[in-house]
Amino acid sequence: MRALGLVVEYNPFHNGHLHHLTQAKQQTGADVVVAVMSGTFLQRGEPALLSRWYRAEMALAAGADLVVELPYAYSVQTAERFAEGAVTILAALRCSVLNFGSEKGEIAPFYALAEFMNDHQVAFNHHVKQFLKDGVSYPKASAQAFSMLSGHEKLLPLDQPNNILGYHYVKAIQRLGISMEATTTLRIQAGYHDKEFAGPIASATAIRKALLSGENIETAVPAHTARLIQMYKRRYRLLHTWEHYFPFLQHKVLTTPLAELAKTAECSEGLEHRLRDSLFSASSFQGWLSATKSKRYTQTRLQRLFAHLLTGTTAEENAAIQQSGPAYIRLLGMSETGKTYIRENKKTFSLPIVTRQGELRRYGQAGEQELRISQCYWLPLPPQALKQEVTREFQQKPINWEKRS
Amino acid sequence: MRALGLVVEYNPFHNGHLHHLTQAKQQTGADVVVAVMSGTFLQRGEPALLSRWYRAEMALAAGADLVVELPYAYSVQTAERFAEGAVTILAALRCSVLNFGSEKGEIAPFYALAEFMNDHQVAFNHHVKQFLKDGVSYPKASAQAFSMLSGHEKLLPLDQPNNILGYHYVKAIQRLGISMEATTTLRIQAGYHDKEFAGPIASATAIRKALLSGENIETAVPAHTARLIQMYKRRYRLLHTWEHYFPFLQHKVLTTPLAELAKTAECSEGLEHRLRDSLFSASSFQGWLSATKSKRYTQTRLQRLFAHLLTGTTAEENAAIQQSGPAYIRLLGMSETGKTYIRENKKTFSLPIVTRQGELRRYGQAGEQELRISQCYWLPLPPQALKQEVTREFQQKPINWEKRS
Repeated sequence: MRALGLVVEYNPFHNGHLHHLTQAKQQTGADVVVAVMSGTFLQRGEPALLSRWYRAEMALAAGADLVVELPYAYSVQTAERFAEGAVTILAALRCSVLNFGSEKGEIAPFYALAEFMNDHQVAFNHHVKQFLKDGVSYPKASAQAFSMLSGHEKLLPLDQPNNILGYHYVKAIQRLGISMEATTTLRIQAGYHDKEFAGPIASATAIRKALLSGENIETAVPAHTARLIQMYKRRYRLLHTWEHYFPFLQHKVLTTPLAELAKTAECSEGLEHRLRDSLFSASSFQGWLSATKSKRYTQTRLQRLFAHLLTGTTAEENAAIQQSGPAYIRLLGMSETGKTYIRENKKTFSLPIVTRQGELRRYGQAGEQELRISQCYWLPLPPQALKQEVTREFQQKPINWEKRS
Repeated sequence: MRALGLVVEYNPFHNGHLHHLTQAKQQTGADVVVAVMSGTFLQRGEPALLSRWYRAEMALAAGADLVVELPYAYSVQTAERFAEGAVTILAALRCSVLNFGSEKGEIAPFYALAEFMNDHQVAFNHHVKQFLKDGVSYPKASAQAFSMLSGHEKLLPLDQPNNILGYHYVKAIQRLGISMEATTTLRIQAGYHDKEFAGPIASATAIRKALLSGENIETAVPAHTARLIQMYKRRYRLLHTWEHYFPFLQHKVLTTPLAELAKTAECSEGLEHRLRDSLFSASSFQGWLSATKSKRYTQTRLQRLFAHLLTGTTAEENAAIQQSGPAYIRLLGMSETGKTYIRENKKTFSLPIVTRQGELRRYGQAGEQELRISQCYWLPLPPQALKQEVTREFQQKPINWEKRS
């Protein structure tokens, strides 16, 4: 069975994702679609609107065969680390081909870019360092450093999130020495940051915005997604946003000694003072974010820091988990095909599959981190519901998806 | 001017307190009544139902002339430490007499008890140690050790909270070598733990219980107290209970490394493991308390631990603050008489008076602790109200009470 790997967040799953999944499967002639998905907190440092279980079901309903979780130590990270974790997990599951969406739908430029960067790594790093010294953010420094290199004009621009991710998938495959083919499919959706909302294809950003203001999003998502979102709201009475976690962040920053705050992942250069000083300057998370944002500290960087603060994740913990690489594969859901694929290939997987939270105890720091962060995700629920959900999730088995006609 | 010192919590101020205040003033022939009051968290480790400002006003309306705050490092403590802090502050304000309520209204037994304990301290300490080894709580070990001493029969029983406090006031005066006369007034109220509620005199416990279940408490409190409670509920939409802080405690225990938790004041003998293990076993604070309570760990002991956890108070911080003794006197409110008393005696006060939060910065750890804990107290408010309240309190001046006819 030929397995196709996708790297996804599905926050939430929409028509653009459906198009990509279907096209990628067809284009690669795959028999089984494996999606490695950010769990509770996402690459840009935001809590997922819905739990990983609901988002996994959306993916299964749309044709994914296996949905596995990208661990927190890889998901709430720069594109490079994110790609490294995702590719490692797809490789462990013996995916022979990876596909991602791109503006042009051509893979050659990504390989060309990777080759170009291999040749110019020293100069590139030098330029990045210089720009960082001037106090700009890392993404900006990278983009500027890139534009300084001679010959970059013919290559992909590195200031678009999707290009950056695609480039890092290719790089990760090369660096890890994995025999996996990278492919790309033409995106038909709007730009990532596009906030317009019209017709069947809208960006995830536009859909989230519409969802949170109570607008109807049914034109932009598969029926199953719409149904699951309704169910989620009825069941938990919220869609998770940073505002729900804001009081916990305030409490954390108020009552944790500065020296401890400074140990938080992404909390460098005295950012803990900035957080403490601005603590009560805002009456909402978004207000606080605006108050702490600067030329050097982008919204994404700060959101990642806030995720680490909320979850008590230290730089040391993340480094230890990253150093040993993903230790297991957390299976969230599977179709009949996915189940068959696991049964037939399990022995060749290079990492063990974890199907229940109880098993996490075997995996030291990585397992502890996952358990803690899963529980953090539910903190906005009222105490009774929190207890129920934490208890329920502890026993939750992967979703066993049987395709309905 | 002869100044009378009272040690109070007023949670909330009720008819029994009014009786005591009036009687004590009359009995001691004092010109000015100084009340040193626990601020945000109380001796038994509970958040005060209403802010210190509202409780200070209740006291002023009932005839207190100065209301000053007992700092957190002394208020959320055993009777011994609590008494030491309170007596130190009253002495700094040149109170020549102290009065407390007692079941018999006679002071001689308290002095006799203090003398007896001076003579039997070694044996007493020895017995306490033995009982603690058997795994009973400190209060129980003390009471049992006391009953082991020969000659104790003629003395006050040491298993009643009010006797213990009275004894420790006398002890503190002696130990600190202060020229302050201890006096006592006959209590007319029900026992501290009495939950019955009838007539004009009810225990604070009964009043809190009635308040929290929405019952009318007007028969048991002065009209001004009743009015302030109504105002408070309208303004903040809550009376502070542990349940409001429960989610913050859960977050803290979930996301703080065990080694850090262990540094919390009162967190000894591996209690951090007990907290972590029982974290999601309950769906309410009271449930959690029941789940963690044991022969060794009383409710009061655990509540104090929870207060320290919530406020991020380490054993080290408390010890440092206690070692140097109260560094300032935080004035919450004053009557015209109180104002005159300050004006005339300020130069003889042995500690400086702080009238605004901004001044706390001059007082190192003690000032930082007060500021942090005041802010923690408001955490249950929604973000907008929290910001307002923290900002407002930062500029709040002491209440200037002009007696109305």
